[in-house]
Amino acid sequence: MKPTSDILADILDEVRPLIGQGKVADYIPALAQVPNDKLGIAVYTNQGDVITAGDAHEGFSIQSISKALSLTLAMNLYQPDELWRRVGKEPSGQAFNSLIQLEMEKGIPRNPFINAGAIVIADLLQSRLSAPRQRLLEFARQLSGEAQLVYDKVVAASEMMHSDRNAAIAYLMRAFGNFDNEVLPVLNNYFHACALKMSCVELAKMFSYLANKGVSVHTGEPVITATQSKQINALLATCGLYDGAGEFAYRVGMPGKSGVGGGIIAIVPGEMTIAVWSPELDPCGNSLAGTRALELLAQRIGRSIF
Amino acid sequence: MKPTSDILADILDEVRPLIGQGKVADYIPALAQVPNDKLGIAVYTNQGDVITAGDAHEGFSIQSISKALSLTLAMNLYQPDELWRRVGKEPSGQAFNSLIQLEMEKGIPRNPFINAGAIVIADLLQSRLSAPRQRLLEFARQLSGEAQLVYDKVVAASEMMHSDRNAAIAYLMRAFGNFDNEVLPVLNNYFHACALKMSCVELAKMFSYLANKGVSVHTGEPVITATQSKQINALLATCGLYDGAGEFAYRVGMPGKSGVGGGIIAIVPGEMTIAVWSPELDPCGNSLAGTRALELLAQRIGRSIF
Amino acid sequence: MKPTSDILADILDEVRPLIGQGKVADYIPALAQVPNDKLGIAVYTNQGDVITAGDAHEGFSIQSISKALSLTLAMNLYQPDELWRRVGKEPSGQAFNSLIQLEMEKGIPRNPFINAGAIVIADLLQSRLSAPRQRLLEFARQLSGEAQLVYDKVVAASEMMHSDRNAAIAYLMRAFGNFDNEVLPVLNNYFHACALKMSCVELAKMFSYLANKGVSVHTGEPVITATQSKQINALLATCGLYDGAGEFAYRVGMPGKSGVGGGIIAIVPGEMTIAVWSPELDPCGNSLAGTRALELLAQRIGRSIF
Amino acid sequence: MKPTSDILADILDEVRPLIGQGKVADYIPALAQVPNDKLGIAVYTNQGDVITAGDAHEGFSIQSISKALSLTLAMNLYQPDELWRRVGKEPSGQAFNSLIQLEMEKGIPRNPFINAGAIVIADLLQSRLSAPRQRLLEFARQLSGEAQLVYDKVVAASEMMHSDRNAAIAYLMRAFGNFDNEVLPVLNNYFHACALKMSCVELAKMFSYLANKGVSVHTGEPVITATQSKQINALLATCGLYDGAGEFAYRVGMPGKSGVGGGIIAIVPGEMTIAVWSPELDPCGNSLAGTRALELLAQRIGRSIF
Repeated sequence: MKPTSDILADILDEVRPLIGQGKVADYIPALAQVPNDKLGIAVYTNQGDVITAGDAHEGFSIQSISKALSLTLAMNLYQPDELWRRVGKEPSGQAFNSLIQLEMEKGIPRNPFINAGAIVIADLLQSRLSAPRQRLLEFARQLSGEAQLVYDKVVAASEMMHSDRNAAIAYLMRAFGNFDNEVLPVLNNYFHACALKMSCVELAKMFSYLANKGVSVHTGEPVITATQSKQINALLATCGLYDGAGEFAYRVGMPGKSGVGGGIIAIVPGEMTIAVWSPELDPCGNSLAGTRALELLAQRIGRSIF
Repeated sequence: MKPTSDILADILDEVRPLIGQGKVADYIPALAQVPNDKLGIAVYTNQGDVITAGDAHEGFSIQSISKALSLTLAMNLYQPDELWRRVGKEPSGQAFNSLIQLEMEKGIPRNPFINAGAIVIADLLQSRLSAPRQRLLEFARQLSGEAQLVYDKVVAASEMMHSDRNAAIAYLMRAFGNFDNEVLPVLNNYFHACALKMSCVELAKMFSYLANKGVSVHTGEPVITATQSKQINALLATCGLYDGAGEFAYRVGMPGKSGVGGGIIAIVPGEMTIAVWSPELDPCGNSLAGTRALELLAQRIGRSIF
Repeated sequence: MKPTSDILADILDEVRPLIGQGKVADYIPALAQVPNDKLGIAVYTNQGDVITAGDAHEGFSIQSISKALSLTLAMNLYQPDELWRRVGKEPSGQAFNSLIQLEMEKGIPRNPFINAGAIVIADLLQSRLSAPRQRLLEFARQLSGEAQLVYDKVVAASEMMHSDRNAAIAYLMRAFGNFDNEVLPVLNNYFHACALKMSCVELAKMFSYLANKGVSVHTGEPVITATQSKQINALLATCGLYDGAGEFAYRVGMPGKSGVGGGIIAIVPGEMTIAVWSPELDPCGNSLAGTRALELLAQRIGRSIF
Repeated sequence: MKPTSDILADILDEVRPLIGQGKVADYIPALAQVPNDKLGIAVYTNQGDVITAGDAHEGFSIQSISKALSLTLAMNLYQPDELWRRVGKEPSGQAFNSLIQLEMEKGIPRNPFINAGAIVIADLLQSRLSAPRQRLLEFARQLSGEAQLVYDKVVAASEMMHSDRNAAIAYLMRAFGNFDNEVLPVLNNYFHACALKMSCVELAKMFSYLANKGVSVHTGEPVITATQSKQINALLATCGLYDGAGEFAYRVGMPGKSGVGGGIIAIVPGEMTIAVWSPELDPCGNSLAGTRALELLAQRIGRSIF
């Protein structure tokens, strides 16, 4: 069955009662102020159709979803062996910002989707790009077809004000020789990427290359190779949902990436890209209603990679 | 493209030079004696075709591959909430027999495919079956269509002689209230399951239900529901390859389960079940040449869940 | 100033209000039944004087205090290098029954006073003594001058019924090659040692050799050398109070050993041996009022090793 | 027996063959250049006598020995409860610069003598002193009676160039709310304290208050109270030698503090302060020949707190 706006609206109605059972991210004031009852979903098919329901056109802070975009950019700039000796490909089995594992494993983060790994990716972008922050923004604008896309400066500044743990992570990696640039500028870029403000529709369009063998459905241009696209999906499936990747695979059955802003993207390879948004999070830091919406969608349209 | 015996033979030729670069499991003498140059592969399609190359008909110790079978049996005996409060669904991010995480997480193993998780499954089977060891053997015989299937008693006894770490795991879980029966009989059953002796062909047939929405291709009978089949595949994809699940997903792109006997099964949902065997292991404990063979097969026949 | 029975009685009066603020050990029923308001103290001087107050003549379960006795016996049976390659001499920095550190440090316990270390000592005694349980009892009888001393069989049996964590510890050490005998008999001996029932007076007499250069004040016989006596005191000072050794040194300033039965022994080298008993424990597992009583005694009589 | 210069010279002769079996600290170039064959010892008695042998008058980088001085200064500025809720009093059971324990224990360092604890102390000094770096230097000059005492600017700068791990520690504590000032200025002060250049004679004089109930033997002025002096000695005995405190207590039997510059101070309460220097370190980071010299001295003069 194909997704329709009726199906999407039904799903949102079914998950809406979950609102109130999760917890909006509050580690920075800018995120804590987002109304907890926002709820939106967008599907972007490989044919270019956009199907939506709820607050699908309203921008929110994409947070860690940006890690999939940054990785894509890094895979364009580095050879695989250059990239993968700096960061691993394995699930972490721990909270997303733990230093314990990072110390035990000598400063090599487990994967590019935990904070440590994304900070290494930001360090890699810093080393090869003259203006990495601007470049990432242009990349996002181009892929989403939304030329007005901006960083939310208030969110970025708020993150920077609460960056102690991420600074600890970066300095620890530098102590192990796995960080090449100055810490603060790299963190600042990293936080700007997290502070990209995008809607479900924009997100689904931006990541359409992951459902389409590396070719952006929106632009028709190759972003990465088909093989790289599969590789990113594999990493998303095993590591994309913090310490809830197994549960997400079990329930939803699609590669995905979540952010503490309450957004999640999910990929049906060969068919469509999905983005959902509901700010309240479960204990793993993934959108509570968003995850459930994706689980229902997978059931209704009968899609799963498994 | 469909797999043919020529393709499979070509792949085995291509991976054979890897033999000598891995290490045969030697923690028990019975495994250490297996010749390191054994190499076999079998594909069992959902249409019932068997395609093979190399030592595909020779039996070997399936070891941890049995954990997928035991889980299937337990999912038949227990309601989901009964089962999943005893064991988690998340990758461990650690070596397969670590006690550190188990203590930190209060005796609840991360997933059913690490040792601790499989021992909990064995404890669950013990509680609900009058003769769990015999029942598992019959289950394996029925699904593989091989009535002569036996436990390798020498391997099982050798495991039992070297069971201290697994006994420590079981006693620790019992200290946390997550183990209900006597330790030694449960371990003995667990080791017997690991000591099932099967060939690639038999393995591919036995697990065909995972590629066929829960229905055994060989018997035509439902083993589990289609949803349960997806769930097991999801767990295999995120947790099935010890601490190498991410790398396996990245390179091979199929749900799989490995054993230290050098076997790996891999699933192409909706199409086929694959089993490969080469005794030498990589540092994560997965068959070195076997993983490479699956990677090549995925490329040649153009299959991946991603 | 010398300790007098008046000083001791005053101190007990001063600490009595603490009763109700700690928690009687309840991991086995036999310990949980001990009245929480028991309170006693005994001083045994190197001149052979006995000074007491409160319930100093009533027997209680000495629990981990026995670890100092077992170590003394083992130091009589083994050369230093034989002994100290099986167990370390460093504080653990962790709860007394943690497996995490034991796994990280390859089955070598940090010191003889955490459970793992005491279990290794029990394994060593088992290897060199034909009847280790009887031998330890005779050793305790001889040193305390109390021929009627017995193991509390109810406590020992209750410990054995709740031995899962200690069994896990023993099996893990065996997996690392640091345990030579069968697990259960050794644990049984270990639990019997913990179940020695002794009064404060008997304890102070038994350990008088630690205050008297290795010579038992009661028997006048050398138990260990003067150097060994200093070594045991050094280990008690750094490792004798579980994860509260630093606090105890800071407040009391004497080598000591506590047990979850609420007893503590403390040594003033060259002068006296002290034993105190109050069943309620602080969060580290040390007697709450007992520690405070020792702190006050150290202040009143002006004794400290620092 | 009293220490004499002959006894000290004999001891140095006896330990000299150990030179070559340890390893000079090389994590910063400035330390790596120190000749490995330097060897000196000084005893400063509570009567004001100075007894020396070898290179006892040559200055070296005192490194972590400064942590005992900084703690003394902080104990003058803060009430006990203000101080000890920021840092613990327990041995760490881990390498001196580990972040693992710090994260598990929510940013509260185990004791003031591991790096994290000393950095908290530096943060406390920063909060209450207008010029903490100058104040500490004056404190050291006054106590040692050496008005020319200086920070080795080359060492301090070299430390600052290799400060990534310590920056990670400070940022992690700040993330847990246990660090109040800007990270880099505090680290800079901390490194300057480590870079104090002092001889064995100067060190023994500076710390004489720890052997003399808080009163500086050199100046006759109280530095801290007698109780505080005992408390610092207690912390030195349990935590002063990194992860070798138990071994040091077992062999030497005196409270002590070591530095990776190869210096160690040791206290005989009521009698004397000792300082020894030999740059090569054992695997725990303590001076190899220095520890052995103190062990021999303790035997020859028959002193031990145990």
